[in-house]
Amino acid sequence: MPDYSIGVDMGGTNLRIAAITTEGQLLEKITTGVKLALGRDYVIGEMCDAILHLTERYRGVGRFLGAGIGVPGIIDVEAGMMRKSANLPGWTDYPVRDEIESRLGARVFLDNDANVAALGEKWLGAARDADDMAMITLGTGIGGAIILNGKIFYGMSGMAGEFGHVTIEPDGVPCGCGNRGCAERYASATAVVRMAREAIASGDAPELAKAVNSDPDFSAKSVYDLAIQGDAAAQRIFTRFGEALGILLADLVNVLDLDMFVIGGGVVSAWDAFAPKMFSELRERSLVYAASAPEDPGAEKEGASAQITSYTRRKTIITRAILGSDAGLYGAARVPASQVYNETRALSQ
Amino acid sequence: MPDYSIGVDMGGTNLRIAAITTEGQLLEKITTGVKLALGRDYVIGEMCDAILHLTERYRGVGRFLGAGIGVPGIIDVEAGMMRKSANLPGWTDYPVRDEIESRLGARVFLDNDANVAALGEKWLGAARDADDMAMITLGTGIGGAIILNGKIFYGMSGMAGEFGHVTIEPDGVPCGCGNRGCAERYASATAVVRMAREAIASGDAPELAKAVNSDPDFSAKSVYDLAIQGDAAAQRIFTRFGEALGILLADLVNVLDLDMFVIGGGVVSAWDAFAPKMFSELRERSLVYAASAPEDPGAEKEGASAQITSYTRRKTIITRAILGSDAGLYGAARVPASQVYNETRALSQ
Repeated sequence: MPDYSIGVDMGGTNLRIAAITTEGQLLEKITTGVKLALGRDYVIGEMCDAILHLTERYRGVGRFLGAGIGVPGIIDVEAGMMRKSANLPGWTDYPVRDEIESRLGARVFLDNDANVAALGEKWLGAARDADDMAMITLGTGIGGAIILNGKIFYGMSGMAGEFGHVTIEPDGVPCGCGNRGCAERYASATAVVRMAREAIASGDAPELAKAVNSDPDFSAKSVYDLAIQGDAAAQRIFTRFGEALGILLADLVNVLDLDMFVIGGGVVSAWDAFAPKMFSELRERSLVYAASAPEDPGAEKEGASAQITSYTRRKTIITRAILGSDAGLYGAARVPASQVYNETRALSQ
Repeated sequence: MPDYSIGVDMGGTNLRIAAITTEGQLLEKITTGVKLALGRDYVIGEMCDAILHLTERYRGVGRFLGAGIGVPGIIDVEAGMMRKSANLPGWTDYPVRDEIESRLGARVFLDNDANVAALGEKWLGAARDADDMAMITLGTGIGGAIILNGKIFYGMSGMAGEFGHVTIEPDGVPCGCGNRGCAERYASATAVVRMAREAIASGDAPELAKAVNSDPDFSAKSVYDLAIQGDAAAQRIFTRFGEALGILLADLVNVLDLDMFVIGGGVVSAWDAFAPKMFSELRERSLVYAASAPEDPGAEKEGASAQITSYTRRKTIITRAILGSDAGLYGAARVPASQVYNETRALSQ
């Protein structure tokens, strides 16, 4: 069996841990709820138990290269610490990586969840053939990551790729970051629900009002379902979503001119509802995209199946992520593997 | 004497050609008017004559490494051709580099004027100590360039760094690129004059109206002079300018998290009039900047003298360019020098 590593995806509700070979084969995946209320040490203990369970199980069948952990928030990758996290307040400025490393007796890497998701798509997903790419993760907010020459581009302080806080509307909706009109105020699950509530309050959205009253789990998915059924108010929300995402993409293409932009995260499942407007805004607003994009707008609709061929090599490709919620698991597992192999290569030179 | 190369800065009105040593010493500079009306071949002839004049003169005192030429427009650096240029329509899709190379019998490099200006500031100017930086050039429009690891980041098709077309106002002033509300519609010399004419038309700008009637050369400089003298209408224009530039910078810092952003171009001389608003917008709108920036806002006012010290190393530095209109000349001369030396290093390894 080839060598393997462990990928950990720590979300706000689920902790997912997988053993993945260096060839990208998933050996086993463990999913547990995250009991954040029980505190940091409890969660770290559970995480380590699960990792040790897997390494025990695959002991001897392949070399264990270490664990990569994707967490939401601003990460100091060098220090292996979280600097800021909305969901994990008790975790900041605590040596998370070193603590887990000492418990496991193995190499551990801590990184931002958007970064490891991008690494996953680069390794085994939509961006397999793109060396320079960015990923936009549409979830509760918007996550972002830039990959150059196959490696995460961190920027000066590890904060490169904060796409969710690019200004879309200079006098728009206030954001927790201090800015107004950030992209994630219009193109995220939270934004969809907010826009739905605003539409209901304005009295222009009777079907949305019905849905919110009858469905205790009213969510972005509920709005999407109505949009697909033809409800005009729900469709307007995803048009606004697509417009904001198109402006963000146009800015990113104009600034970065990358081979590929991959759009992932849970809300990407609403692709049909927002993508047409997203592409029309992008084409109108980005001279760099217009210069590189296929003439045939029909081609864009098949974003999910877009391939980089020699013919399309110089075109900006905007496409859906392929790996879904596993992107972060695969990407996290990729970190220790590529790290160990890089060091081995360097030593043998 | 050390080796030297030739830098060429081809603007819309002036052609400037300089012999510069690899140590950054300016040996001689020739400035002539650009007679664009006489056609591409005439201008290329004049350029080659001036370069040959300089190489004759310094023959034997140092090795001539080649010429770098900065031109406005979208350049295919690999092909050595211009793909699009507002000012030089007859130059597109013509083998400019190869033609000049064959006339000179020396290596020639063609690049975008904003890129070579950034290389100049990186080599001998404000960004000497920054490996990862971007430069915003405020002129007729806005030019942009990204430098990573000391080298220009071109992107997939050489169009990375189109900062001037980042959307600032989604429903703003139409731009020639097809977008609306582009940064350069608010923060460029052209934008200042347009906003002045709008203010005059609205009847709210009596001093500007006087100036435009009395001054046949009414320009952004005239608006700046009035702003500095305390004219409220002129000041509002530069406040709008600073706001737009602050939004652009916030977007760039959030996306790229670079060590340094250098602001240059002719209009940077209006720094006093636009910088306060630029910094306040930037601080408010960029969580990445706020996380890294000095608490003391007074420090920002001395942008021009900002130094990267060990203390400020992890702070985003926003600063004025140092080399003025010579940045492009130095940067263009740097290209053949670094290219030849890189190749020599590669061969000797």
